[in-house]
Amino acid sequence: MTIKDISAQIFKKQSFLCIGLDVDLDKIPKHLLQEEDPIFAFNQAIIDATHDLCVAYKPNTAFYEAHGVKGWMALEKTITYLNEKYPNHFTIADAKRGDIGNTSERYAKAFFDTLGFHSVTVAPYMGADSVEPFLTFDGKYAILLALTSNQGAFDFQTKSVDDEALFLKVIKTSKQWKNSDRLMYVVGATKTEQLGQIRSMLPDSFLLVPGIGAQGGDLEAVCREAMTPNVGLLVNSSRDILYASSEGDFVKAARRQAQVIQEQMAQFLMGKTGN
Amino acid sequence: MTIKDISAQIFKKQSFLCIGLDVDLDKIPKHLLQEEDPIFAFNQAIIDATHDLCVAYKPNTAFYEAHGVKGWMALEKTITYLNEKYPNHFTIADAKRGDIGNTSERYAKAFFDTLGFHSVTVAPYMGADSVEPFLTFDGKYAILLALTSNQGAFDFQTKSVDDEALFLKVIKTSKQWKNSDRLMYVVGATKTEQLGQIRSMLPDSFLLVPGIGAQGGDLEAVCREAMTPNVGLLVNSSRDILYASSEGDFVKAARRQAQVIQEQMAQFLMGKTGN
Repeated sequence: MTIKDISAQIFKKQSFLCIGLDVDLDKIPKHLLQEEDPIFAFNQAIIDATHDLCVAYKPNTAFYEAHGVKGWMALEKTITYLNEKYPNHFTIADAKRGDIGNTSERYAKAFFDTLGFHSVTVAPYMGADSVEPFLTFDGKYAILLALTSNQGAFDFQTKSVDDEALFLKVIKTSKQWKNSDRLMYVVGATKTEQLGQIRSMLPDSFLLVPGIGAQGGDLEAVCREAMTPNVGLLVNSSRDILYASSEGDFVKAARRQAQVIQEQMAQFLMGKTGN
Repeated sequence: MTIKDISAQIFKKQSFLCIGLDVDLDKIPKHLLQEEDPIFAFNQAIIDATHDLCVAYKPNTAFYEAHGVKGWMALEKTITYLNEKYPNHFTIADAKRGDIGNTSERYAKAFFDTLGFHSVTVAPYMGADSVEPFLTFDGKYAILLALTSNQGAFDFQTKSVDDEALFLKVIKTSKQWKNSDRLMYVVGATKTEQLGQIRSMLPDSFLLVPGIGAQGGDLEAVCREAMTPNVGLLVNSSRDILYASSEGDFVKAARRQAQVIQEQMAQFLMGKTGN
């Protein structure tokens, strides 16, 4: 998938919403637990109900791995379903991987070849050779953690390294890596103070922005600070949509919540047509 | 498993060897590819041939995930086999995970409860709330990336933050986290210049040391800089042992290579009995 393809979908759908498929069996409607694969059944229902309102889906691997082999099967079924039925959606494995070079190669193979995702989130701590193996696939992207939405982001990411914050150092350094045009960046919606600065360093990159809704981030501020002529944003919502209702009406409730966000996004897109 | 249990095994076996189960189907003996589960068949053979020479096994999840559901099944079979047949071995899921708090909880559940590992490697970039969920399990450990063995370690880990290297900042900060006595640390064998300094900050912690052999680290230097009265070291070897031969004699060759390392370790343990 090209960056142009993603932008085209954004303008077509008037939405830059990414839906996080973080399935919690304690929160989904009880009747789904009788399904052979409750996680996949839930994802399928959510995807079918929301696909025209969003441009991306992002399963977080932790929620699948917690169930062992069964969880990994549900992940595989989910990405296969997406690729077959909704091939225009950008897919993100939120896996936060990263290891020495020959090992990161295996992770890249796992998420891009074996599972078939378009992108995977990657942690920067181990440096160039831990990320570059993810950048060797045509039409695939690594989404590098820059400034995350959680409180722990202040432990190291915002600390000063050579007179700039570590997350800025990470961004600056990563731009020198091979095939860095295949990098996107994770920036939490709760960190609006730094979003403008990040955007000025990354005028053309897509940012994956988690943290609106349950985590307290503000969509208006995100758009004000970081929207580009081509939008350049994928804003994620998970819990607010998935668990809008835990009853039999969960599909309708999820769609309604996704629509609320999509309509807000359409307001911020007004007058934009892309380059 | 307690730290005392690990030390007792080290003195009993005269070994602080950890064997990395990083199975590469291109490198294992061809006849194993006809097995129903070649990865597990290989691991079982390696484990049976080396268990008395090592105290820990460390599958790296990348090598399993590259094969999708089948790989995850092989990982599950491997850890189950270890826990049932060799319950005194310390087991490490080399997964380098880390996410916001409620998500790291899922990873902890995945590796400690669902799979049954004693420990998991964790990346520090996202800070306290991304690591603390791994520290709430009695007898289980998070092994935090401090200074890794690869070239990319120099991109960020060794950069100066508040007048000290980031990896030292990570170590110092992590000691303030809740249940930090359940932390161990990854320090590459290739970074012997910094090992002494790390040991002086962590007089009682176990260090997981990858990078001897194929990656160029030196066992003698590691022991000189970082061995404590209770040893405090788990030194990993993967490729040198697993792929000592790719022929029918691979089991014997792997045992021979593990024995070479164990005998070197016994020399460095001479005169030590633990506290």
